[in-house]
Amino acid sequence: MRTLISDTISQIGKTVLLKGWVNTRRDHGKIVFIDLRDRTGIVQIVAGPELVEDLHSEDVIYVTGMIKARPEKLVNPKLSTGTVEIEAQKVELVSKAAELPFDMGKDELGVELPTLLDYRSLTLRHPRVQAIFRVQEVIIDAFRKALQAKDFLEFQAPCITPAVAEGGAEVFRVKYFEHEAYLTQSPQLYKSLLVGGFERVFSVNKIFRAEPSVTTRHITEVVSLDAEFGFIDSWLDVLDMQEYVVRFIFDQVAQKCPKELAIFNATVPKLSKKIPVIKLREAQQIIFERTGRDCRQEKDLAPEDEREICQWSTEVHGSELVFVSHFLTKKKPFYVYPDPEDPTYAYSVDLIGRGVEWSSGGQRLNDYQQILNNAKEWGVKKEDIELYLQSFRYGVPPLGGFALGAERMTMNILGLKNIREATMFPRDMERIDVSLRKNNPAA
Amino acid sequence: MRTLISDTISQIGKTVLLKGWVNTRRDHGKIVFIDLRDRTGIVQIVAGPELVEDLHSEDVIYVTGMIKARPEKLVNPKLSTGTVEIEAQKVELVSKAAELPFDMGKDELGVELPTLLDYRSLTLRHPRVQAIFRVQEVIIDAFRKALQAKDFLEFQAPCITPAVAEGGAEVFRVKYFEHEAYLTQSPQLYKSLLVGGFERVFSVNKIFRAEPSVTTRHITEVVSLDAEFGFIDSWLDVLDMQEYVVRFIFDQVAQKCPKELAIFNATVPKLSKKIPVIKLREAQQIIFERTGRDCRQEKDLAPEDEREICQWSTEVHGSELVFVSHFLTKKKPFYVYPDPEDPTYAYSVDLIGRGVEWSSGGQRLNDYQQILNNAKEWGVKKEDIELYLQSFRYGVPPLGGFALGAERMTMNILGLKNIREATMFPRDMERIDVSLRKNNPAA
Repeated sequence: MRTLISDTISQIGKTVLLKGWVNTRRDHGKIVFIDLRDRTGIVQIVAGPELVEDLHSEDVIYVTGMIKARPEKLVNPKLSTGTVEIEAQKVELVSKAAELPFDMGKDELGVELPTLLDYRSLTLRHPRVQAIFRVQEVIIDAFRKALQAKDFLEFQAPCITPAVAEGGAEVFRVKYFEHEAYLTQSPQLYKSLLVGGFERVFSVNKIFRAEPSVTTRHITEVVSLDAEFGFIDSWLDVLDMQEYVVRFIFDQVAQKCPKELAIFNATVPKLSKKIPVIKLREAQQIIFERTGRDCRQEKDLAPEDEREICQWSTEVHGSELVFVSHFLTKKKPFYVYPDPEDPTYAYSVDLIGRGVEWSSGGQRLNDYQQILNNAKEWGVKKEDIELYLQSFRYGVPPLGGFALGAERMTMNILGLKNIREATMFPRDMERIDVSLRKNNPAA
Repeated sequence: MRTLISDTISQIGKTVLLKGWVNTRRDHGKIVFIDLRDRTGIVQIVAGPELVEDLHSEDVIYVTGMIKARPEKLVNPKLSTGTVEIEAQKVELVSKAAELPFDMGKDELGVELPTLLDYRSLTLRHPRVQAIFRVQEVIIDAFRKALQAKDFLEFQAPCITPAVAEGGAEVFRVKYFEHEAYLTQSPQLYKSLLVGGFERVFSVNKIFRAEPSVTTRHITEVVSLDAEFGFIDSWLDVLDMQEYVVRFIFDQVAQKCPKELAIFNATVPKLSKKIPVIKLREAQQIIFERTGRDCRQEKDLAPEDEREICQWSTEVHGSELVFVSHFLTKKKPFYVYPDPEDPTYAYSVDLIGRGVEWSSGGQRLNDYQQILNNAKEWGVKKEDIELYLQSFRYGVPPLGGFALGAERMTMNILGLKNIREATMFPRDMERIDVSLRKNNPAA
């Protein structure tokens, strides 16, 4: 019967069977120290050289041994099992590892991004890398829990779509029997049409962007956390829901991932009692007054504007996140809801924090005729949005919603430099698992 | 402040604001009865004709009115709010619906499959159709909860893959910048390689099959519930985990969806204390003895064999589900684990119930050299499985896993006749939202 490594500290004096990987090996003449790793942590094994003759890093071994308390002065405060060690009686080699291409035993892997990804199967074993995906799991799970608690139905948004509804050259084409189909750029039309039936829906789904650029923030296959709901009284209801969800996610990450956050010396963003909301034009005025840089006629916030407005929000409101609303209607998709007071601007909202965008959302049109008119004006073909139009033809309440990128959120919380670090198997112009440009030497 | 319909029964005498859709309208001279529907149910509105002049089915309305107890003899036992009705004081039309193409007010929609899907935005509003997706949500959520409780990490399996690793013409091709890529047929290689890092992983992900056939059981985009874990002592550990998960799902559906099950007159499958396990050859012998039909040399179970073995399992073991193991090694993928006692047969297992397959799984190879040898023998190119091979090169414990189809499970539990009914937006050879063969008249 296997004992997990995290359970060893409470079983001093017992002989147990541990199973895991050799994390590191240190030879001291007649004694060999092996750090054994399993999914719960690392523990030190003490063995005679004859027991562990050819063992090295990443070998899978089963160790039978007695759990001993370490003398006070030999306690290792860096290990959660640092108060004990295992005196090995029997060591069985179960799966032999090839020699490693780099040292896996250090706190930081210290390899460049291409190496990190070329050796993904290996680097995903490193505790620091694993921490990223434990945080990501909590983010996604918290997103679901937050919305389930508000009576949202989880649905499975499709990947294959019949048309490119929101325009764009940046779409992947699929040969679909004798037809051409596309990989979805957003579940927007599906989640909106479902409001007609279920009122409140959410989805954890893939979206695809064929952007022919290699930046630190873009990958081609993204996990999107999408929500949409009806019977709103105002566009501000959408912000409230979004704030509730983001707060819930932060609370869950802080509560469930203290170790992981500590590894990255990270904290979840500090929020004030209420996330501030300002209009694009107000934000630009503030930026102008603070920096002298005049972006007041721009149609969007540039990266340095996003950084500045976050700085302002943190200083003035004590909130690392800020909602920026009222982007230009014509720069947004055809279903965006124009502000009746000035239809040039729309009830469209970005959530910005730590200098970058975290999510976007807003109120959507729900009047069939208005949608039809806008689709025409935006150059969207009626036959490309049939199922969506159908829903609104048969009555849909005022609605809105938002979308969060799971990888981007992971990156922003942990302060990672590249979204590829926050993606287990990142796809971009140059890589799908292996580099697309050359034969890859890693396998 | 909106009151949900399900909350009306506890607030008799209060004046409330209800928001929802006109489900049905019945005119009785000076009184009009409107069944109002929201996400929580249906309640009867009583209004003077002047208040509801032009209203008809699927109009979105906001109703202000007083909740009244119905006289005993007018209680409607078919409605969960049948003890009350709302005396309307004010009715606001919020979104006007076009005239319906069919009656939405009946207990059964009574439309044929093409109509059900052509009008998907509308038919998804019908309570019976909605019930299907509430059950599906519970199935998927229970799958996650079951595995989280066993310390499995949830990961996001990719959709785009660099190669067709498990062979097959039945794959969708994606134009990926200047390269060709593919839609994944299974997350098998990813979940297996992750066992090298996380020991236990699961994933709710899409898989794609370009099967050029239109059957009641096949769609091209499927939600797969995948699990894989290491440090197993035997292939039977994989069965135990699978049984635990399936039992957990059944329990959750029975507990959370009594109304939905009742709509379909369905129950979750009856299980004995332990799901029986028999080998393929044993199953064939039993079928021969029971029916005289000799399938003992066949390489797989035919549909009538699956039905017969389920019949046997139910009669003899009191279990509607049965594990059939030991399929022919050469009929399975290259990573299957051959039974050392007779390598012609493998530790490969199907879970069969109610006459059809529910899931498949088994033990996988974990020895690098053996995997390499098999890949070669199976004609799988090394460069097509690089990342997978990399993991096993660096030490992976004995492992196994299984996969359940979410739509198929929904269909099997509710006794639906076609998997398209259990899929919100089914994709097949002839349809992506709308029919691919003709212009669709539904929008």
